[in-house]
Amino acid sequence: MKITLLVVGRTVDKNIIAAIDDYTGRVKHFAPFDIEIIPELKNARKLSEAQQKEAEGELILKSINSGDTVILLDEGGKEFRSTEFAAWIEKKQQITAKRLVFVVGGPYGFSKKVYDCASEKISLSRMTFSHQMIRLLFVEQLYRAYTIIGGLPYHHE
Amino acid sequence: MKITLLVVGRTVDKNIIAAIDDYTGRVKHFAPFDIEIIPELKNARKLSEAQQKEAEGELILKSINSGDTVILLDEGGKEFRSTEFAAWIEKKQQITAKRLVFVVGGPYGFSKKVYDCASEKISLSRMTFSHQMIRLLFVEQLYRAYTIIGGLPYHHE
Repeated sequence: MKITLLVVGRTVDKNIIAAIDDYTGRVKHFAPFDIEIIPELKNARKLSEAQQKEAEGELILKSINSGDTVILLDEGGKEFRSTEFAAWIEKKQQITAKRLVFVVGGPYGFSKKVYDCASEKISLSRMTFSHQMIRLLFVEQLYRAYTIIGGLPYHHE
Repeated sequence: MKITLLVVGRTVDKNIIAAIDDYTGRVKHFAPFDIEIIPELKNARKLSEAQQKEAEGELILKSINSGDTVILLDEGGKEFRSTEFAAWIEKKQQITAKRLVFVVGGPYGFSKKVYDCASEKISLSRMTFSHQMIRLLFVEQLYRAYTIIGGLPYHHE
């Protein structure tokens, strides 16, 4: 199983980028993983929130292949403890033939079409974090999941 | 009201340190804020988990002054949405005479004495993050709270 984190918009904070790269490298010791960045909309300021969501949704759908299992990182999604997330990832590895794609939306959430193509929604926190921070949270948690699956001494209960 | 984030152990990842410093600087535009670091135990490897928790607890209690309002960042704590956390901070500003101290524990949690001196427990996520990441999450969320209180265009609902 390949894992992709699909995100909209470039990360600009160089400290956060470096921290994300660090954890991305660590995750790759355990599984094929990449972060795919969809460039943000150029004319976003001229669009309403609803129009932005719709246009971003089209770009997200273009990046999804048939056979992908799509998981949205969404504030309305299911919350996991780290050990539960690790068990969930382990199970997905057994049943996912192709690619597991986690999608982080823009500030206004996802369009209906994106919700419709997703198989699950998960939430990293009830709090809202910047899109840069969400990426970092996700890669740290994915790395933590693999250390839990592998029984490595990173996570303590 | 002064806000302190009290943590055990130095952050070693220079990218995370830089990101924490960035958000710390931003928070300081809104309120007196600092991060107090308690050096980690030198002989930790020789101690059991329970002994570590106890010894760290003593150091935490030494850093707390009478009159401080103590809030533990604890996985068993109350989860907030960002807007709820902002409202909570705003209320605390009205009723806290001295210092609001948020405490991040070590990997094994807090000793009973620390729990006893706390007035509330809050949780940033059901997931467990490294102590370095928790600091970053907290400062971003504190900054976000002040932008929500101030009506600044950082947070979107």
